[in-house]
Amino acid sequence: MGRVTHLLDPAVQHWLDIVGIFVFAISGALLAVRKNFDVFGMAVLAEVTGLGGGLFRDVVIGAVPPAAFTDAGYFHAPLIATVLVFFLHPHVERINKAINVFDAAGLGLFCVAGTVKAHEYGLGLFASAVLGLATAAGGGVLRDVLANEVPSLLRWDRDLYAVPAIAGATVTALLLGAGALNAVTMLSAATLAFVVRLLALRFGWRAPRAWHRRSTVEDPEPGA
Amino acid sequence: MGRVTHLLDPAVQHWLDIVGIFVFAISGALLAVRKNFDVFGMAVLAEVTGLGGGLFRDVVIGAVPPAAFTDAGYFHAPLIATVLVFFLHPHVERINKAINVFDAAGLGLFCVAGTVKAHEYGLGLFASAVLGLATAAGGGVLRDVLANEVPSLLRWDRDLYAVPAIAGATVTALLLGAGALNAVTMLSAATLAFVVRLLALRFGWRAPRAWHRRSTVEDPEPGA
Amino acid sequence: MGRVTHLLDPAVQHWLDIVGIFVFAISGALLAVRKNFDVFGMAVLAEVTGLGGGLFRDVVIGAVPPAAFTDAGYFHAPLIATVLVFFLHPHVERINKAINVFDAAGLGLFCVAGTVKAHEYGLGLFASAVLGLATAAGGGVLRDVLANEVPSLLRWDRDLYAVPAIAGATVTALLLGAGALNAVTMLSAATLAFVVRLLALRFGWRAPRAWHRRSTVEDPEPGA
Repeated sequence: MGRVTHLLDPAVQHWLDIVGIFVFAISGALLAVRKNFDVFGMAVLAEVTGLGGGLFRDVVIGAVPPAAFTDAGYFHAPLIATVLVFFLHPHVERINKAINVFDAAGLGLFCVAGTVKAHEYGLGLFASAVLGLATAAGGGVLRDVLANEVPSLLRWDRDLYAVPAIAGATVTALLLGAGALNAVTMLSAATLAFVVRLLALRFGWRAPRAWHRRSTVEDPEPGA
Repeated sequence: MGRVTHLLDPAVQHWLDIVGIFVFAISGALLAVRKNFDVFGMAVLAEVTGLGGGLFRDVVIGAVPPAAFTDAGYFHAPLIATVLVFFLHPHVERINKAINVFDAAGLGLFCVAGTVKAHEYGLGLFASAVLGLATAAGGGVLRDVLANEVPSLLRWDRDLYAVPAIAGATVTALLLGAGALNAVTMLSAATLAFVVRLLALRFGWRAPRAWHRRSTVEDPEPGA
Repeated sequence: MGRVTHLLDPAVQHWLDIVGIFVFAISGALLAVRKNFDVFGMAVLAEVTGLGGGLFRDVVIGAVPPAAFTDAGYFHAPLIATVLVFFLHPHVERINKAINVFDAAGLGLFCVAGTVKAHEYGLGLFASAVLGLATAAGGGVLRDVLANEVPSLLRWDRDLYAVPAIAGATVTALLLGAGALNAVTMLSAATLAFVVRLLALRFGWRAPRAWHRRSTVEDPEPGA
């Protein structure tokens, strides 16, 4: 969602943003179907998932009104995702693995774009990377909170999601600090996050939990 | 909550805002009682329900500090609602149908006032209508999230709530675009949302869910 | 988190802020362990608990980018809390009573600092006190929402939390109004909130619930 006008061709960046928003929105609409929401609930959850992370970033850095409300394309992409899921839900579910690949691409694009935009608004490198992570992961957290579920991001029994975004945002911040950010290195950072996320999905990578937890049971549905 | 100074007499608009906040706050305080919260939990939920939608809109359009923090009346109305529900809870529950009517009135007033205020702050017609919807429905969503419930707005088994607000906000945006917004047309748009909501309540109108959902069971408590 | 530069030595105030953030973050990390989150979930919950209240206040008063993103110390304190809880979890749980004392200290510091910062940004005394309460209690509410629990703040079966913060924020606002706020009176207000909270914990003070509730059962786990 961050418009990074100077580094990529603006039109290219805009379409990358739209694609990222669209794929995130698909995950929101699918969760809405699983929760038995109606079509308006699907649209709200799709919008929140697609735009929530960027909206949070823009409010925090003072970029108001946020891009989500000034670019109609950003708002319409989740509506198209809602229509698709509404009519083709079983087919969309069936290609869930393909969606995970697109979601990983969105994660990569957003953690880089979020970091760059925060830096453009004057935040330090470290804070910019944090906001890059928030841009990439925020929409999914809001999606889960609205659906009254424990956010996937926090759960131990889900494959790594924060780590790829942290990797991409950190590399972007380092490149910004070194003055070496350009279209090529930026896409490399996004690709890094993308690949790490795919590897985490492929091999079921998980993060450790606190040492010496008292419960010895390996509960099958932790955090639920 | 939006102050629409030029179209209605400011004092009239102010009192309409207060009434809307107050009625929304009643629904927050009532939910707090059902959730067994204490009196402070009631007050927090009443404030959030009454002011949350307008607060979200104001932060997004950059109208800070938000009206909720600059007009003491806006803040006190939910406290009065809390006191009423605290002492007269069974009586308030008994007039639940009457409250639904007032809530529908609040919905109508807020979707119009929210659209107009967003437009005054420079947003496009489409984005303004979206923020009108957010102003009208946002407080209820925050109320349900804080109470750890699935938001009514999203649930299939609740009567239409988004549609009346969308209708009112869309008509308001069209009137703004046509330069035809005045006190009469504005109240007409609010009345449209109000009436559609009452009809949805009266006839149990609901929105469709996604086609071809796998589950064939008509679960009595979906989304819960 | 509010920097109250003129009243206390800035370095002293800064360290008080860090301590408050750190102690709040401990409570977030501990809840994450109880919810079986992984180490990144712990870090997210620690950050949200430590910084959420101040972040909300700063966005509302227009102090963007918020202090949470401009002072690296504010961001690192919750990470240190996460590492501590990660490795020493059972020991940290064991000193839970000590943590409650620190949390009460954080409550006292934040309700005062939040009130003062809001007033510095031009809000009225009443609104400033409300934001002082939001600064002190907001992080805990966000923590519980992200963990998919009913916020402690709202629950009847938890010892008073809002009242001490309201007391501290109100006294601070009155002192501001009387032009009598200085380092001594400010710390007195914080101490008042601190002591009231400790007394509430010690004697199990609770707030009343609505009169004439229908249920006659004294349910052991209300609101859960």
